[in-house]
Amino acid sequence: MTMSITVEAGAKGAQPIDVPAGLRNVVAAETEVGNVLGLEGIYHYRQYDATELARRCDLETVWFLLDRGRLPSGPERDAFAAELAAARRLPDALLEPLTVIARAGGPLLSQLRTALSLAGAQLGVRPLLDLDPDERRGDLLALAALTPTLVGALHRLGRGEAPVEARDDLGHAAHYLWSALGRELPAAEGRAVEQYLIATIDHGFNASTFTGRVVASTGADAAAVLVAALAALSGPLHGGAPSRALEALEEIGAPERAADWVDAQLAAGGKIMGFGHAVYAAPDPRSALLGEIADRLGGELVGRAKGIEAALLAALAARRPGVALPTNVEFYAGVVMQRCGLPPELFTPTFAVSRVIGWAVHAVEQAASGKIIRPTARYVGPWPLEPVPA
Amino acid sequence: MTMSITVEAGAKGAQPIDVPAGLRNVVAAETEVGNVLGLEGIYHYRQYDATELARRCDLETVWFLLDRGRLPSGPERDAFAAELAAARRLPDALLEPLTVIARAGGPLLSQLRTALSLAGAQLGVRPLLDLDPDERRGDLLALAALTPTLVGALHRLGRGEAPVEARDDLGHAAHYLWSALGRELPAAEGRAVEQYLIATIDHGFNASTFTGRVVASTGADAAAVLVAALAALSGPLHGGAPSRALEALEEIGAPERAADWVDAQLAAGGKIMGFGHAVYAAPDPRSALLGEIADRLGGELVGRAKGIEAALLAALAARRPGVALPTNVEFYAGVVMQRCGLPPELFTPTFAVSRVIGWAVHAVEQAASGKIIRPTARYVGPWPLEPVPA
Repeated sequence: MTMSITVEAGAKGAQPIDVPAGLRNVVAAETEVGNVLGLEGIYHYRQYDATELARRCDLETVWFLLDRGRLPSGPERDAFAAELAAARRLPDALLEPLTVIARAGGPLLSQLRTALSLAGAQLGVRPLLDLDPDERRGDLLALAALTPTLVGALHRLGRGEAPVEARDDLGHAAHYLWSALGRELPAAEGRAVEQYLIATIDHGFNASTFTGRVVASTGADAAAVLVAALAALSGPLHGGAPSRALEALEEIGAPERAADWVDAQLAAGGKIMGFGHAVYAAPDPRSALLGEIADRLGGELVGRAKGIEAALLAALAARRPGVALPTNVEFYAGVVMQRCGLPPELFTPTFAVSRVIGWAVHAVEQAASGKIIRPTARYVGPWPLEPVPA
Repeated sequence: MTMSITVEAGAKGAQPIDVPAGLRNVVAAETEVGNVLGLEGIYHYRQYDATELARRCDLETVWFLLDRGRLPSGPERDAFAAELAAARRLPDALLEPLTVIARAGGPLLSQLRTALSLAGAQLGVRPLLDLDPDERRGDLLALAALTPTLVGALHRLGRGEAPVEARDDLGHAAHYLWSALGRELPAAEGRAVEQYLIATIDHGFNASTFTGRVVASTGADAAAVLVAALAALSGPLHGGAPSRALEALEEIGAPERAADWVDAQLAAGGKIMGFGHAVYAAPDPRSALLGEIADRLGGELVGRAKGIEAALLAALAARRPGVALPTNVEFYAGVVMQRCGLPPELFTPTFAVSRVIGWAVHAVEQAASGKIIRPTARYVGPWPLEPVPA
């Protein structure tokens, strides 16, 4: 009577379509935003290699590219930078809500989720379904541009410091650092963080980008899309946890202790944070870029990280021969952010400051498709139905 | 050079799997929570017909069933009701934040999104990944039980009224009405709303339930899951818009004007709100239940709705022969809520008060599976890559 059987559950009786668990490799949508070539170890934004963009362009230029599908002229880039500068100014009406949100506490990423949700209401964003493409783009861009200001203000309020005054003389990346730290970083460090931000804007249909597109497909408003994507980003399995890789680095301490540490992790069934990736078989190109940036910055932490990375890779190769566990984006992301003076609590929020740009661009694309994303499930519970007892 | 081509993008170079657009009929997960049998016109929670449960049980009993997979004994039901009553009391610390959220304005559903996000931080919910099944259930249940209190308080604050004092002598459904309206409804109306709440807790992998499961699959916390699901629910294409069906009813006014109204809607390419459903070919069993409840309540509005429904169905059948466009849940949901004195701005939030129970149960199940939901996309943009200009 309560034997578990399978019941077909497609829409209007259609045959359900079985696919690998977790929708792995299932094409959920078409996109022109970018792509990840896992075997080749390449990812790109529109028609440009993403790490190449990070090496050669500023954040405004790359955001424009993602937004419009082509690189800007000089004046176009400047006009776009001005648009972002205007959108990132904290509205006076948000100051009290941010104070209340900071006081309620919790992880900074949760506070940001609340703040973005409230900012959407305050800005009067309307359902994407009811907007034309330019209006959709405007609402999404406004909230994405405001995100670093919200992160900075919440971080400061949580430490009992007042939010800083907005400045129009800084680029988007530098302004984020100004908002969070209340000071400008030396040029090399500021540029390092900007390159990190550029390199993590988009990366295929990760869980947060996909979540944002599902919500956009319902025609919901810009805040709903970004808040939902942020909710997914906060999941430990999403992979965006540079602070955990850094903690492992601190725990290991020195290259000669790497092998013992790997043994202990494997014996405990633990994952080796900072190594391996769901999509790449080849080395993660983001890791190569960030390693290069770390080299440029130099210093004790970077030297130690390089030594420990080499020892970890050797230990992993000896213990898991034939299994590719290349260094992923987490490892050097944490090193670079730490080296630039960002406290660990800002690591994942900084990732969000970057990725929100990608979510916004994806949402514009998804909303244009006009098709709701609505899969089905397979019921595997008790069957047949029982009458409800009297 | 910018010709659009297809680039393969599966994880680690695997072949991507093509499925119908919007993942239609694609099995995204297995579930024991419930199921929709579209051809038969049946949906069920666990092993019981959902409309049968709505006809014969109270909300606490059905919630227990969904939570535990079996109906409660009398004492179990009472203990569960006491657990819900404790969880739905508004913490003092939330009063100021709710006042600030209500002042920021926007649709009540957006305010609820902000409030749930903040309540999660205030309650200190932790990532589902880090919790055992009982702790996950506890966090999700606490926020789901608090949801009607948040809706009621925000609704009242928006009208310049103070939130009501919590009462332990009311069932969950009655307490929601008390929180929102500041009065108890006559027994028949209170029971009608309770039956609506029971009947809409779960309904397959709609976009909000799916969104919640994607976020739960990342291991994120209970607030992240519910906020994301709520974000999806706020989308106009999700289908949860009883107020629009009621607006159509007001617009038509009388049965003899139904045919002209249908012609105008079809000529404008508009959808006929309240008719047709993505999953059911048979009549929507929720609509039958709500029609029955409306009959029981009686009154002018119900009589008019019945007459207009019959005229609309006749007009639709004549103009779209062979196309099944049965009355869906929206039509009588709006009628019943209006008849019970709920203002239209509370219609979708009331839906959320019900559906949040389903999201919570699905999240517990999804988190137990330990598998992230991460599909892929097909890149269809410009190719091959171009060098970044100097």
